[in-house]
Amino acid sequence: MLDTQVKNELMTIVDTGRYLDRPEELACYAYDAFVVEALPDAVIFPETTQEVSDIVKIASRYKVPVTCRGAGTSVCGAPIPLRHGIVICFSKMDKIIDVNTRDRYIIVQPGVVNVDVQKALAPFGFFYPPDPGSMNTATIGGNMAMNAGGPRCLKYGVTIDYVLGMEVVLASGDIIRFGSKNIKDVTGYKLSSLFCGSEGTLGIITEAILKVRPLPETVKTLMVTFDDLDNTAKAVTDIIGSGIIPVAMELMDKLTLNTIEDVANLGLDREAQGSLLIEIDGVKEACEREMTLIIEKVKENGAIHVQEAKSEVERERLWTARRSAYGVFAKLAPDIVSEDVTVPVSKVPAMIRKIIEITEKYGLKVGVLAHAGDGNMHPMIPANKADKEEWQRVERAFDEIFQAAAALDGTLSGEHGIGLAKSDYLPLVMNKQTIDFMKKIKQAVDPDGILNPGKFV
Amino acid sequence: MLDTQVKNELMTIVDTGRYLDRPEELACYAYDAFVVEALPDAVIFPETTQEVSDIVKIASRYKVPVTCRGAGTSVCGAPIPLRHGIVICFSKMDKIIDVNTRDRYIIVQPGVVNVDVQKALAPFGFFYPPDPGSMNTATIGGNMAMNAGGPRCLKYGVTIDYVLGMEVVLASGDIIRFGSKNIKDVTGYKLSSLFCGSEGTLGIITEAILKVRPLPETVKTLMVTFDDLDNTAKAVTDIIGSGIIPVAMELMDKLTLNTIEDVANLGLDREAQGSLLIEIDGVKEACEREMTLIIEKVKENGAIHVQEAKSEVERERLWTARRSAYGVFAKLAPDIVSEDVTVPVSKVPAMIRKIIEITEKYGLKVGVLAHAGDGNMHPMIPANKADKEEWQRVERAFDEIFQAAAALDGTLSGEHGIGLAKSDYLPLVMNKQTIDFMKKIKQAVDPDGILNPGKFV
Repeated sequence: MLDTQVKNELMTIVDTGRYLDRPEELACYAYDAFVVEALPDAVIFPETTQEVSDIVKIASRYKVPVTCRGAGTSVCGAPIPLRHGIVICFSKMDKIIDVNTRDRYIIVQPGVVNVDVQKALAPFGFFYPPDPGSMNTATIGGNMAMNAGGPRCLKYGVTIDYVLGMEVVLASGDIIRFGSKNIKDVTGYKLSSLFCGSEGTLGIITEAILKVRPLPETVKTLMVTFDDLDNTAKAVTDIIGSGIIPVAMELMDKLTLNTIEDVANLGLDREAQGSLLIEIDGVKEACEREMTLIIEKVKENGAIHVQEAKSEVERERLWTARRSAYGVFAKLAPDIVSEDVTVPVSKVPAMIRKIIEITEKYGLKVGVLAHAGDGNMHPMIPANKADKEEWQRVERAFDEIFQAAAALDGTLSGEHGIGLAKSDYLPLVMNKQTIDFMKKIKQAVDPDGILNPGKFV
Repeated sequence: MLDTQVKNELMTIVDTGRYLDRPEELACYAYDAFVVEALPDAVIFPETTQEVSDIVKIASRYKVPVTCRGAGTSVCGAPIPLRHGIVICFSKMDKIIDVNTRDRYIIVQPGVVNVDVQKALAPFGFFYPPDPGSMNTATIGGNMAMNAGGPRCLKYGVTIDYVLGMEVVLASGDIIRFGSKNIKDVTGYKLSSLFCGSEGTLGIITEAILKVRPLPETVKTLMVTFDDLDNTAKAVTDIIGSGIIPVAMELMDKLTLNTIEDVANLGLDREAQGSLLIEIDGVKEACEREMTLIIEKVKENGAIHVQEAKSEVERERLWTARRSAYGVFAKLAPDIVSEDVTVPVSKVPAMIRKIIEITEKYGLKVGVLAHAGDGNMHPMIPANKADKEEWQRVERAFDEIFQAAAALDGTLSGEHGIGLAKSDYLPLVMNKQTIDFMKKIKQAVDPDGILNPGKFV
């Protein structure tokens, strides 16, 4: 519970309906899709940037932790108020302020859901490329805080590639604005990149100008299976090497395919060692030509089964298989850890074999999904957190998985972030001076450490 | 001249041939392509990151300014050692360390010339997209320090979009490394974006991992002229709105076309109010279809003259016209200021008219070039700096041009940077809190202010 004085001051900013502090209310803001929980002392729902600034000024004066929350879909614990204090929930700052497709931008508040941005743009024939798996619920503010990716980021890039400008409330309560409505802008430091991906530890994003793109005319989708994992990955680099960067190249391993098939009965090839779901887009003639080239490349790499979606229904069915993977694995046990170690593309097969070897050693089930075109891998381990012995095996397995990724020139996270899940592993991929440098930035920007304390920095 | 003690210490790191301090030698390092000059006290040529670190440790101990220099092609004064001290010249750190097109990266030292990166990648069928006008001489280190752009950045993005990882020597001499060989990486703060574009004020880039792309199969180029500037710009947004993002859409105004034609006699249309040089690339069938669409769009916008390059020779001729613009204008007077104000695309015609109106008011000649697809405009004013009265008019004109850009939601620089040229104008596009925030970052990272002092922060 917050000190009465703090509460009273906060309640001069928002009315009763926008301030929660009863335990049964707070419980809803204690978790995300990761496995750690922590209760906030209060949850507050600002409606304007000025209100956010006023809230933070009070928090700053009393040194109360402030953790921001979009839709809580993070899988690394980033929005968990580990040191309690105030959770600022952005559900009431969910306006789309401006849609300007002529100049290729959209201006949004942080609480806007990703899919609503897509809906606002579609009538103009435009879209916003980053498409995290959670895009139907996740907010743009959360996407920016985590620098979210998604399958089509292979061709189109991740969140930071689409942030043109931002308004940010600092730990002092000061409001800063940088970037602009201009596609190219090198005026001053690239501050948007500092806040985007900082997981709420440096400032609070209250508005953003995002770059948008024209929708492609045609989309084509292909499902391919292989009887060898190396060939699956080599097909990926061969396709890119031939000059084509597909929208997405999603890899699934044998266990993932079989587990999905057990549940969903989609007619997937149970004998395949690996599969690729490949999607391309563009003008019709280009897609046709590229699809021919891609089919050549996968056949050169020994593809067994090649299935092109002949209709939107078939395309949806192929994507349903891919999208259902997380849900199917999540049902296998009370808890699931979905990681996202990333390695250079050519090392994907080695990393998959390593993941399978490590999890077998610890007697765990694992499914491996990968955004294979950029080496971003999602090993999913279903387990029961209440079973302490099993959970210890899960933790040990991930220790070794992260070590293996680092040994293969990989990194800890491609798109999920560090949050609570992986801060201990930073030294695997960064020297002490680099970690100290991040702390120095944090210290300069948030000297009292009130912004999302307890996270990776 | 540096203090003898400092010089002696520096010369324990490099031998005589890599330390210059005779006035006639220093003179070569006093300028870039902007109009301000300042002599360094010494120029030093490190060969390794460790040497850079050792040099900076000495500079830090004696609080001697350190300014880095690639090829000196900056047009905003960024590498000018305004407060003298040491210039670190990277001409001896010019190695390409690794080319790995399978995993889509190249590792380079900062002194590598942009075009040499292209040459190293071409045999593998890959390229590095950022293509500043100076790419035949400018170094990758300078490109990164300035976050360089170029014509084809419309489709492919600017330098920061290609930096995967960096090694940086801090003001303390500490060496930090961040990012990785992975296309997607959200491990920790996006520090590469903080250094890229910081114009050498935050740290010294000593190595970089850059993302590369497969070369497109086909390139098609089109020159179009219009008798109306608004139609020229509307064609640009109509093309993008139709779903095509060309590689480049270069706009030239009437005076620019005529001045080039006076000198180069290329057969350009002297009556046109605006021209567009449009280039697309991709698979052959896509280019053909897109070219048909583009020609439709320019005709809908009243194009007078549409000329598609039928051969590589014709394509080169069209680009020669565009590329010769700066040189042609530079010959009109002893000095030239080439600016790069940027506005949202739909405001390009308004901004061009404003530029012409302002320069006419001050009795100056101006040619306007624009990377029109992203609103990045290069007004070029030839003048004589020695003529104080004329130069004052040039300065007043730019004052008004920057104000006009800001009033149109534009920004001070799309790709040239701030350097010495535009720091006074920052308040036009940033509030005080934002400028203070940049100073806070600078203060935290370089507390003694030894890195490129006197620049925008």
